[in-house]
Amino acid sequence: MAKINDNYHKLQSGYLFPEIARRTREFAERNPGATLVKLGIGDTTKPLTPTVIKSLHQEIDNLANAKTYTGYGVEQGNPDLRQALADYYKSFGVNIHADEVFVSDGAKPDSANIQSIFADNSVIAVQDPVYPVYVDSAVIGGKTREYKDGRYEGIVYMDCNEDNGFFPEIPKQKVDLIYLCSPNNPTGAVATHEQLKAFIDYAHANDAVIIFDSAYAAFISDPSLPRSIYEIEGAETCAIEISSFSKLAGFTGVRLGWTIVPHKLAIEGTHPGEVQALWNRRQSTMFNGASNIVQPGGMAVLSKPGLKESQELIDYYMANAKIIRDGLNDVGITTFGGVNAPYIWAKTPGGMDSWEFFDLLMNQAHVVGTPGVGFGRGGEGYFRLSAFSDRANVKKAMKSIKVNLHL
Amino acid sequence: MAKINDNYHKLQSGYLFPEIARRTREFAERNPGATLVKLGIGDTTKPLTPTVIKSLHQEIDNLANAKTYTGYGVEQGNPDLRQALADYYKSFGVNIHADEVFVSDGAKPDSANIQSIFADNSVIAVQDPVYPVYVDSAVIGGKTREYKDGRYEGIVYMDCNEDNGFFPEIPKQKVDLIYLCSPNNPTGAVATHEQLKAFIDYAHANDAVIIFDSAYAAFISDPSLPRSIYEIEGAETCAIEISSFSKLAGFTGVRLGWTIVPHKLAIEGTHPGEVQALWNRRQSTMFNGASNIVQPGGMAVLSKPGLKESQELIDYYMANAKIIRDGLNDVGITTFGGVNAPYIWAKTPGGMDSWEFFDLLMNQAHVVGTPGVGFGRGGEGYFRLSAFSDRANVKKAMKSIKVNLHL
Repeated sequence: MAKINDNYHKLQSGYLFPEIARRTREFAERNPGATLVKLGIGDTTKPLTPTVIKSLHQEIDNLANAKTYTGYGVEQGNPDLRQALADYYKSFGVNIHADEVFVSDGAKPDSANIQSIFADNSVIAVQDPVYPVYVDSAVIGGKTREYKDGRYEGIVYMDCNEDNGFFPEIPKQKVDLIYLCSPNNPTGAVATHEQLKAFIDYAHANDAVIIFDSAYAAFISDPSLPRSIYEIEGAETCAIEISSFSKLAGFTGVRLGWTIVPHKLAIEGTHPGEVQALWNRRQSTMFNGASNIVQPGGMAVLSKPGLKESQELIDYYMANAKIIRDGLNDVGITTFGGVNAPYIWAKTPGGMDSWEFFDLLMNQAHVVGTPGVGFGRGGEGYFRLSAFSDRANVKKAMKSIKVNLHL
Repeated sequence: MAKINDNYHKLQSGYLFPEIARRTREFAERNPGATLVKLGIGDTTKPLTPTVIKSLHQEIDNLANAKTYTGYGVEQGNPDLRQALADYYKSFGVNIHADEVFVSDGAKPDSANIQSIFADNSVIAVQDPVYPVYVDSAVIGGKTREYKDGRYEGIVYMDCNEDNGFFPEIPKQKVDLIYLCSPNNPTGAVATHEQLKAFIDYAHANDAVIIFDSAYAAFISDPSLPRSIYEIEGAETCAIEISSFSKLAGFTGVRLGWTIVPHKLAIEGTHPGEVQALWNRRQSTMFNGASNIVQPGGMAVLSKPGLKESQELIDYYMANAKIIRDGLNDVGITTFGGVNAPYIWAKTPGGMDSWEFFDLLMNQAHVVGTPGVGFGRGGEGYFRLSAFSDRANVKKAMKSIKVNLHL
């Protein structure tokens, strides 16, 4: 008799975005003439750049011709792209071998699927607030117990708050897998070398593995901040890094990412190379490679003109971030992030909770953001705004906040 | 202390294709001037068709323009593509709702990942010989015990042999999930309505779920054979169907597939719609949709001119299949499949085992195929040849077999 995986029943229903949709729908019914400016979702809006477009068209033409047509690719990714990624890391001082780089269809699936190579009873630590995928995939994989007071039992939540600059202390207890996201979604905080070093030391001392999500690394402009965990000594023996072309080059819908599992990464009971081989096996068994159309697009992003064009995209979004920060600060709202990250993490004014401020901002200023509490209990009292919008929208939103929001 | 998922250690090393590579490499060293004709791998060789190419170029142009650029798509797939797939099924008499269709990056990941929504201790039944992904993903998911005598303990292997026309009897014991692949990889056998009905009756009686892999359905030309399990009454309450654009339209490297989970599918302890909702949750949590570039290509395949062009591809490959069947029969080798399927399943002559015949065929005729035993114990004494090659290669191989193979 077939039975379902009961762990799915522990999952909280996807409350955040449906609830936002419900409230905006009701707003529209109440205010038929009004237009909401949406700064909630972290989705890119600028088109792919010319160098990328050219390479994509070329690859389509290759597939139109029997002489250049290609079928199944390598599950681990096109060797040229793996090498290009290794070279990209070298450009900021990190030595990675091409065969430690696994190309994928994005950071989201990788950050969920990576749990497959570790034991079912692994204890997972996450930052709170947190990108929900790390937690939900742990729930599905049976690594948690019940949901109580906004948290799953069995997961170690590491508080991120104003006091610690939204980067957590190392766990007090022993954990097995530690998710760190820097630049952070949702808080926009970026970990320093010293902060990451503390986690690397913890990982060595406790034989833990760090899963480092660097999907927003390209938004770091401060040269003193690490763009990869492998910039810190000792990371190659305890950390896996997951990243993506999504925000680097507007590939959110195109789907291309990568995961680095160093040969040297070893945990007790394994020899160096074994964890890398497990991920290799997982991907060869359960994945069939990123699209052959898309991978040359990634190569184009990493070319000299491609990187220059991507930097222009990033500069555009970061100029939005500044407008948002300034606009909020002007009306007396305290902000965090948004300097080396495309997310602005705003403190709700007057002690409002996240949803109260959501309603106020929508009803008075006609601006939609994301309530911080949607990313976990630690996000209560905060609010996320995204810089990935069109400039005109961003300016319109900030003007409306200045004129219409009464705090 | 992090620990690895020990189930990976139960996996047999990917023996088949590395071993083929080793033997062909040694052949090349011994025979520096000789060229091997490779008919082993089931990978498409003909270019994408004009209608598809046109749509892909158009979508790239859309992504180059801010007005038509799109970011994150819907995890379940573009609604138009889901509807087009529902309409495609309707063209051969199957009623599927668009929201029962989940677009993915291919049948391989879906056929592995689908296990996630069922209990860890589910008993899985597979045909033997079998496409290895079903088994390997069950091993990784902890649904098996040790590997002994060519089989994993805990999996129910359903023998496919000459006596039963390479389609199995229903299991004698209770199982939870049953993988059926028709047209079959590797045997090329196609299940009849009656054969599928027996499994559907078994599934109802035992509250089991059938996972039906129809990736090769487009190769069925005999109108009496079902192209979808939903052509058989009662399937919508007990079967999931997984399929792909890979072989239908040469998308092996492009990556686009789909899975159908009917609303009516229910097992004990669930209400109708719950299994569909679980797959929806799995895909929204751990997947981010197929590439936005690729999905319009799928729409183009399903358009009237697209389907006509795909049929021409299929006719080409099936003409190859006939040449292979005739060529082998001419030298006295018995073949199966290759009529409504792109795989020819040949009986090794003179009681040779699969690898003996592999060596003979390579050394005498310079033709490389796939030893049947590579697909499981039930494949011993058989050999798979693929019709997905260039016509000139197929003819060359058959001529060489006729002239050089001495049985």
